[in-house]
Amino acid sequence: MAGKIILKKQAEKRLLAGHPWIFAGEIASEQVSEGPGAIVDVFSSAQKFCGRGYWNPQSQIRVRLLTLKPETVDEDFFFQRIRQCWDYRKRIGYTDNCRLVFAEADQLPGLIVDKFGDIVVIQTLALGMDRWKSAIVAAIQDILHPAGIYERNDAPVRELEGLPQVKGFLSQPFPTTFQIRENGLSFWVDVANGQKTGYFLDQHMNRQAIAPFVKDAEILEAFCYTGSFTCHAAAFGARHVTAIDASADALQLARQNAALNGVATSCSFVEANAFDVLKQWAAEKRSYDVVMLDPPAFAKSRQQIQSAITGYKEINLRALKMIRPGGFLITSSCTNLIPADLFLQIIRQAAADAKRQIRQVLFHTQPPDHPIVWTIESTAYLKFLIVQVQ
Amino acid sequence: MAGKIILKKQAEKRLLAGHPWIFAGEIASEQVSEGPGAIVDVFSSAQKFCGRGYWNPQSQIRVRLLTLKPETVDEDFFFQRIRQCWDYRKRIGYTDNCRLVFAEADQLPGLIVDKFGDIVVIQTLALGMDRWKSAIVAAIQDILHPAGIYERNDAPVRELEGLPQVKGFLSQPFPTTFQIRENGLSFWVDVANGQKTGYFLDQHMNRQAIAPFVKDAEILEAFCYTGSFTCHAAAFGARHVTAIDASADALQLARQNAALNGVATSCSFVEANAFDVLKQWAAEKRSYDVVMLDPPAFAKSRQQIQSAITGYKEINLRALKMIRPGGFLITSSCTNLIPADLFLQIIRQAAADAKRQIRQVLFHTQPPDHPIVWTIESTAYLKFLIVQVQ
Repeated sequence: MAGKIILKKQAEKRLLAGHPWIFAGEIASEQVSEGPGAIVDVFSSAQKFCGRGYWNPQSQIRVRLLTLKPETVDEDFFFQRIRQCWDYRKRIGYTDNCRLVFAEADQLPGLIVDKFGDIVVIQTLALGMDRWKSAIVAAIQDILHPAGIYERNDAPVRELEGLPQVKGFLSQPFPTTFQIRENGLSFWVDVANGQKTGYFLDQHMNRQAIAPFVKDAEILEAFCYTGSFTCHAAAFGARHVTAIDASADALQLARQNAALNGVATSCSFVEANAFDVLKQWAAEKRSYDVVMLDPPAFAKSRQQIQSAITGYKEINLRALKMIRPGGFLITSSCTNLIPADLFLQIIRQAAADAKRQIRQVLFHTQPPDHPIVWTIESTAYLKFLIVQVQ
Repeated sequence: MAGKIILKKQAEKRLLAGHPWIFAGEIASEQVSEGPGAIVDVFSSAQKFCGRGYWNPQSQIRVRLLTLKPETVDEDFFFQRIRQCWDYRKRIGYTDNCRLVFAEADQLPGLIVDKFGDIVVIQTLALGMDRWKSAIVAAIQDILHPAGIYERNDAPVRELEGLPQVKGFLSQPFPTTFQIRENGLSFWVDVANGQKTGYFLDQHMNRQAIAPFVKDAEILEAFCYTGSFTCHAAAFGARHVTAIDASADALQLARQNAALNGVATSCSFVEANAFDVLKQWAAEKRSYDVVMLDPPAFAKSRQQIQSAITGYKEINLRALKMIRPGGFLITSSCTNLIPADLFLQIIRQAAADAKRQIRQVLFHTQPPDHPIVWTIESTAYLKFLIVQVQ
């Protein structure tokens, strides 16, 4: 072992409850012979072994446990873990497109691996995980034999770990814009320039779940990104979808996706700030059968929670005002900092303020390739709600 | 109006928040010129009109509001309400089998109407609703033209309202055992003798949702009732399902359902008390890839909540012990007295006691023909959870 961490009294409680992080303030003493990213053993104040993980003195999250056992952490360790991840996805039939590794929920803290057909995109979001990148890439090559691997390590969160923002090929180069299939439809994915790893696989079940609510509907969609909900709604028989996004690049792909699925004539795309449009169109008393909202995370740190609440409330309030009686609000939130009960409270308050009565007709979280570990709050992040509005 | 109810100070708060019940203790004065079931107007202590509903001096729930407006409550009122219910189910494509009326969530307190193909089953669970039974039946005839209507008013809850337990035809007689289709499978339904209205439509989406978790699995199922989950699991490719129920009648239908769907050879049925079997087989260290639990409501009144918690914990603990590493627990609870967060706590505690690590892979509630009104807690009752067990 490259180091030994001794916790303060009681600080092992969170670890024992199943959460793998140790914060700087919880450490009584640390002896580490290697630099940042070193593998260290963690002991309670009573010298009881608690687990083994990687250490980063530059991060507030000083240690993230990789295992609760005194097992060797080497290339083979990562190979075995990634194989377990793949075995689970194979078992549940998530073999084409899936989140292959969901970080803490797969006991691989800081590692995200998304599989889009035969292309794999990885993010190593913590320094201690980034150090093992070549082992991870080798394991993915061995296990999946993908046509290509791309790294989307241009995530700002890496800077908290002292890591640079980088992106690029981890295999032979390949075309980074390609098509995937989802729920019988086709979508262009841009793994080099899209949000996060290029495409939000976590909404695939929810995109299917809108089917009963959009038939024959006139729909307003805000934050449409590359049009995945848009195309689903149109393919499920929506009369028309007006889809808004602030990104011209996303809208270009959205238009291509609509064409690809033969629904271009029932979709129109508007390049605009969704907050502005929702405010203006609600004031103009425009109305729709269905409004769909799937904004990016409004809160990325605890300091932003209050402004996120305000943001979610505002867009949902405007949306509710525009929904014709009997219509539906289809609304999402993808930040783990707004737990499900708080999100529902926000919608409830928005409905009260909009003087609209609502009934919940559907509430989902993430699909099973994004499992939730109850003791690790950050693994529960997606809220997907459909309410009927009177 | 047959009466006027004046509430105590502050007692209108719940009504204004959207809950339609008035308890005996909340009433300052009541002047009612007709007998139990009379339609009364409800006023706040400041003489503000709060709504109109039916009154029953024999019930702890003294008034249930039918409307917040001073509109006439007559045959046409029920016709319009039921037509709205049908319009909503038609809009979302729930036209074959559905819960057509879900009581308070459809602003028809105390009324349940389930539609199984061209057969309709009704329950009028409160006296004030029971009085309108002929209007309800006439409306259903006019709107749906069903082949038959049956009343399952043998529910014990009717006695709290001073109503007898009765069941029988409300139309020309028809065969009360017949087949319905669900998720591409066929099921025998016995509307005269089955639980509640004969078949639990509320799990139809969840039965479909087990598909990824049961393929090739050796499954133990407790509380299998008439085998709807059993047949789905077998049809989705389970290697074998051992299904337990205490009712010989239910198992007879379950066997017929397995045969009907061509999966009889991969199902075996055991007539036994599920608590006993789970205890014994767990002690014998039997093991399964998947255990499925869908028990009847363990709590029907607040007095039973603690014993319900004990019951849910026990069966889930035994189940968890028998699940092979990497396997799945598929577990339900259908009582509104155990809210979702409490149910998840029970499972968490059961896993801790069983010394098994779990990850949530799916959590659902009710399908959209059983909408949830957040302000009426009793409308949220179904919890359906799948966890992976290590």
